[in-house]
Amino acid sequence: MLLTESLPTTDLSHLFSPRGVAVIGASPGRTRIGAQALEALRTNGYRGKIYPVNTKYDAIGDLKCFQSIADLPRPCDVAIVAIGGSHVPGVLRQCGKAGIDFAIVFSAGFNEIGTRGAAAQDELEKAMRESGVRVVGPNCQGIMNIRERVMCGFGSIFMNRSLSHGEVAMVSQSGGFGYGVLGHAHYAGIGFNYVASAGNESDLTTLDFLEYVIEQDEVKIVATYMEGIRDGYRLRRLGDRALALGKPILVWKVGNTEKGKRAAASHTANLTSDYELYRTAFAEGAFIEIDDVDDIIDISRAFRARKLPRGNKAAIITVSGGAGILFADRCDQRGLRLTELTGSSLSELKAFLPEYACLENPFDLTAQVMNDPSHFNRAVRVIANDPNVDIIMMRAAQTLAKGEQLTELAGIMESTGKPILLAWGAPPDRTSQDIKALESMHIPWHATPGRATLAAAALVKFSTRVASSAGASAVELMKKRIPLPNAGAVIDEYEAKRFLQSLGVASVRETLFTLDEIRALKELPFPAPLVVKVNSRDIPHKTEIGGVRLDINGLDDLKRTAEEIDTSARRFAPKAKIEGLLVQQQLRGTEVIIGVKNDACFGPVVMLGIGGVFTEIIKDVSFRFAPFSEAVARSMLSEIRGGVLLTGYRGKPMADIEALIKLLALVSQIAHVYRDEIAEIDLNPVIVGNEGQGAAVADALVVIKPSSRGQAIEGI
Amino acid sequence: MLLTESLPTTDLSHLFSPRGVAVIGASPGRTRIGAQALEALRTNGYRGKIYPVNTKYDAIGDLKCFQSIADLPRPCDVAIVAIGGSHVPGVLRQCGKAGIDFAIVFSAGFNEIGTRGAAAQDELEKAMRESGVRVVGPNCQGIMNIRERVMCGFGSIFMNRSLSHGEVAMVSQSGGFGYGVLGHAHYAGIGFNYVASAGNESDLTTLDFLEYVIEQDEVKIVATYMEGIRDGYRLRRLGDRALALGKPILVWKVGNTEKGKRAAASHTANLTSDYELYRTAFAEGAFIEIDDVDDIIDISRAFRARKLPRGNKAAIITVSGGAGILFADRCDQRGLRLTELTGSSLSELKAFLPEYACLENPFDLTAQVMNDPSHFNRAVRVIANDPNVDIIMMRAAQTLAKGEQLTELAGIMESTGKPILLAWGAPPDRTSQDIKALESMHIPWHATPGRATLAAAALVKFSTRVASSAGASAVELMKKRIPLPNAGAVIDEYEAKRFLQSLGVASVRETLFTLDEIRALKELPFPAPLVVKVNSRDIPHKTEIGGVRLDINGLDDLKRTAEEIDTSARRFAPKAKIEGLLVQQQLRGTEVIIGVKNDACFGPVVMLGIGGVFTEIIKDVSFRFAPFSEAVARSMLSEIRGGVLLTGYRGKPMADIEALIKLLALVSQIAHVYRDEIAEIDLNPVIVGNEGQGAAVADALVVIKPSSRGQAIEGI
Repeated sequence: MLLTESLPTTDLSHLFSPRGVAVIGASPGRTRIGAQALEALRTNGYRGKIYPVNTKYDAIGDLKCFQSIADLPRPCDVAIVAIGGSHVPGVLRQCGKAGIDFAIVFSAGFNEIGTRGAAAQDELEKAMRESGVRVVGPNCQGIMNIRERVMCGFGSIFMNRSLSHGEVAMVSQSGGFGYGVLGHAHYAGIGFNYVASAGNESDLTTLDFLEYVIEQDEVKIVATYMEGIRDGYRLRRLGDRALALGKPILVWKVGNTEKGKRAAASHTANLTSDYELYRTAFAEGAFIEIDDVDDIIDISRAFRARKLPRGNKAAIITVSGGAGILFADRCDQRGLRLTELTGSSLSELKAFLPEYACLENPFDLTAQVMNDPSHFNRAVRVIANDPNVDIIMMRAAQTLAKGEQLTELAGIMESTGKPILLAWGAPPDRTSQDIKALESMHIPWHATPGRATLAAAALVKFSTRVASSAGASAVELMKKRIPLPNAGAVIDEYEAKRFLQSLGVASVRETLFTLDEIRALKELPFPAPLVVKVNSRDIPHKTEIGGVRLDINGLDDLKRTAEEIDTSARRFAPKAKIEGLLVQQQLRGTEVIIGVKNDACFGPVVMLGIGGVFTEIIKDVSFRFAPFSEAVARSMLSEIRGGVLLTGYRGKPMADIEALIKLLALVSQIAHVYRDEIAEIDLNPVIVGNEGQGAAVADALVVIKPSSRGQAIEGI
Repeated sequence: MLLTESLPTTDLSHLFSPRGVAVIGASPGRTRIGAQALEALRTNGYRGKIYPVNTKYDAIGDLKCFQSIADLPRPCDVAIVAIGGSHVPGVLRQCGKAGIDFAIVFSAGFNEIGTRGAAAQDELEKAMRESGVRVVGPNCQGIMNIRERVMCGFGSIFMNRSLSHGEVAMVSQSGGFGYGVLGHAHYAGIGFNYVASAGNESDLTTLDFLEYVIEQDEVKIVATYMEGIRDGYRLRRLGDRALALGKPILVWKVGNTEKGKRAAASHTANLTSDYELYRTAFAEGAFIEIDDVDDIIDISRAFRARKLPRGNKAAIITVSGGAGILFADRCDQRGLRLTELTGSSLSELKAFLPEYACLENPFDLTAQVMNDPSHFNRAVRVIANDPNVDIIMMRAAQTLAKGEQLTELAGIMESTGKPILLAWGAPPDRTSQDIKALESMHIPWHATPGRATLAAAALVKFSTRVASSAGASAVELMKKRIPLPNAGAVIDEYEAKRFLQSLGVASVRETLFTLDEIRALKELPFPAPLVVKVNSRDIPHKTEIGGVRLDINGLDDLKRTAEEIDTSARRFAPKAKIEGLLVQQQLRGTEVIIGVKNDACFGPVVMLGIGGVFTEIIKDVSFRFAPFSEAVARSMLSEIRGGVLLTGYRGKPMADIEALIKLLALVSQIAHVYRDEIAEIDLNPVIVGNEGQGAAVADALVVIKPSSRGQAIEGI
């Protein structure tokens, strides 16, 4: 699903293009952060008005210094707040009265220091509400609009007059680190436009900034350094919208390991959701996950050429076997396929390439090709024109990518529409004329074959997402909706299965008996073997009290077992109200697990795994957010390694994969439709029979959300 | 085991320090490779004699040009051969007569082009044998001794007069790519001494070069770009020796995936061994596996400081929470532990650090520390002196690591002996004075926290290997040795187990019966359940012909089954000589697999896995080369994820892990001692009983090496 309509965004145009900026706590010099902020605005070419505010000065440099916020001329859209934390609430109120819409607050001592900052945080939030001023931060390093030279922040990067305007927007939750990243990427020739450090996000969040910047025409690529966000659904929606706009979001997610998470919690006071859920979100939409500055640099270079591959069929061209081998390894690791050329392309190449050239992909034209460098581009052209080729990577010496050769190469890329990425053979010296020429012609260059392949894989991933999103129709939601049994409270296994069954989820054959009814049975209710379980809303974990027995084959066996379970349940759960004994047919098949977790941040996510050691020890599971189509369910099955157990493993018959896929997609619909009421679903196991025999739930646990317990069920 | 004695190496001193160099095929100008080689020698400061050889010229520049190799003055130690491939054999013979020891052959058209080059290769090898000249290449790019300005090669890197002398030696199987890597690393400030491109390795191999360079005093670090080597045992021995010398070998292994391997095979004509075996080798000795140029750069920077951490306890110091979170994630990924400080260190820090500083690792001193930069180093000193800290990583702004601050930092590293790695906060501009100062003080700096952690992890890995090697005694080899049954030919399961049993490998209880003997049995030979199998040297795979039956519980059952197996075997393997029927006690326990593969390149490698899906689907296995100690066997068990099944998984009793470990180490001894005779051992399954009950082999296949079949058994 592509979000072709723009999202409802917070209008930040006056923040990024202010007509006037007040610097509260401005001072002369360059030491204090208020001084640095003033200096950054004054010396970087900002064309709006600058209003220093400090009771100690009448003027700073040639600027009049104001004694009070109330005195400021209008319009003044932004106040930079560089004062002690305790004064911030008062200043916000004054800003509100003075008609200032935005405050960028550097001050620290709020929720980023934990409970010690709680009182200050409360004061701050009250002042925000009452004043109506929108706040960046606190504890942030500021924002930039590089095209308009709006440099509202402190630190050396804000003094860097050489920062050139480009097509990348960056939003970082860490100010210090984020602007460091910006400095590195700028040094490598990546130009930025909008940059924001979100700080504590007491008001404006990373998502607010991201939603704004992706809608700006001059933004072509977005990079973000993310510790944790509070609304996973908004994150996912952002990814969809960016995909519709054709803009990749390079996301650098940190705080993913236990130690990192603890550090993140104390830093931003966000409760970072499980990394697995972020990864599930980043597997959708326009997100490309990265993990170092070089990734921003290399991927941005590749996107800047504005050529997307149609697929993952790569051709490698080198003048040295060693580079070809490395490219081949990297393509394999990153999901690019080394393509084969058509026969006619091969004949064409054979006609002019050197005797020892390798005419298999990776194509090694050998150093001999340098004797007539025109042959290099001639080979590139033949390969780029081949219909089996989606993307070309090459490693070439300087002599092969300069002057006329280079112009010709750019022409080939333009005329074929296929991306050509170059692993530069010489030192990656950006001051060299050769590299300047490459950059001016928008030919992506990378320091090594590994880096080029990483960038190529990002292009392929993005274009694949665009293509599959464009083709996919929205998931059609189930029309049926029945109320939950015992609405708002705990339900037992029998109720859970009847509820799911009424929505179309197949269950094993089963009957709920009283003990007396079992005592009176004249024959087995279903063909053996059978399973007997205690059924009670008060006993969600039956196995632990001896409440489940398998492999029951005869009537006597059934009756004896029923007595034993009943005795055991009454002994180990004396207060439980026992609804009866559940007698089930014990099916043969492959056991899988389908689970739903309704995450507070991301909403319902569905898990698929194979039962037993695959799920418990190997964590061999696949996740998707609900709802999803059967096509997505199929791809989940293909992602788990234990999935081979369903496809005729070691001579076993094929399992009923189609039934499993339908069931999985149906569960995702239920998870979505009942997202306000259901906290968890655990179908463990689901028994998948042989082809044509279906898939049935053998045990089901449905956990109701505490918040919805006792509430009436609303309509859809 | 540390190899304290130097290895028997090929003496390459006259190759790397030649008194005279002839350039066969020299010409004027700079276009042809013979011209480039001559130019590189002439203009780079080489102090020996240079002898151009070409019948077309009397002189080239101011150098006399010789018409014939026979005319060359002596001593001339090296001939650079830059002529058509067909002339190479003749030239080698002339070199031999002229007393030239080494030839560096650029020419192509030999085994690197496959069967087309086979005839030329044969001629070449004959000429090498007959002339006694040692050859670098053919199809190589040459060698360097940068300190002595011996630049014997072609291409722009050989013309680079700015190449500075350093402590890294590099050996590359790919000339073009290898020298490209050298160029990048040099650009980043990494200096080299010996560099060699091995080309086709028709004579001198990558291992010859590596063995030579590690023994040279000026070499402190070795980097190698490796496609495949022919003698895995020599590779392992090299790793041991380098560890004893305290020199890391950064190994960049390519050609690991199927496509890459095919490219490698056509490039070097080496049969690349399975990557798993290389990884097993790289897990020993001085090897540190890398996968891009940046790794060489960052790890070399870290080693250059000459400080090794005692363990993996890391402390992170930053002035921004964001960087700390990233460091924490990276430490977790790379096996570094974020340490806790002692109480007294914490009190010391609390006394002077800013109010909002984070006193948990990662330590965020906050930007406020810049108000008094001396507090930064004061904190570093307290943390570095803490006994719980082995290594420090920090991210600091320029102001914190320059001038006196920097000198002090270097002093802390020197006085504590603990490595301090710096993630440089500003752009990584090597021309900046700040970075020049860092380099002059040997403080390792890295572009990002991720890069710094990668380098730190390499230091920890290396120092851990040094420590554990120093402490380990050599594996004591088994004294017992009995001849293989049916020496040199196929052996059956019963023979295999008796052979292993006589060496101390426990087997399940079993007896070999004839069918008539089973017919005559009056009672079960062992307590039920039993297993019956056909036993024949001609039927190595019994299951496929219905030759194995489990779960036999009574005497009638046993007799009937024996008849059925006998019938089935005679029907499906009519030509097999059946030695009898093997009746075994069927043990309960956890099934594991122990395998031995006697690899042609690396020698015997032992595999441990858990039976079933863990081995077959997840490939959850651990490898070590034989022989090894029980301590190593224990670490193998800890590496496999399925190992938890043996340690009281889901309430099961603990398995007899000690028995398994003893058995595994014993199998490694057998694999080593019988390495000339045994090709494979497959113990599948080994049944591990509960604690104290032992581990016994339930099925064994021993495959004899074809080469040793029919040969007499030699003594150890």
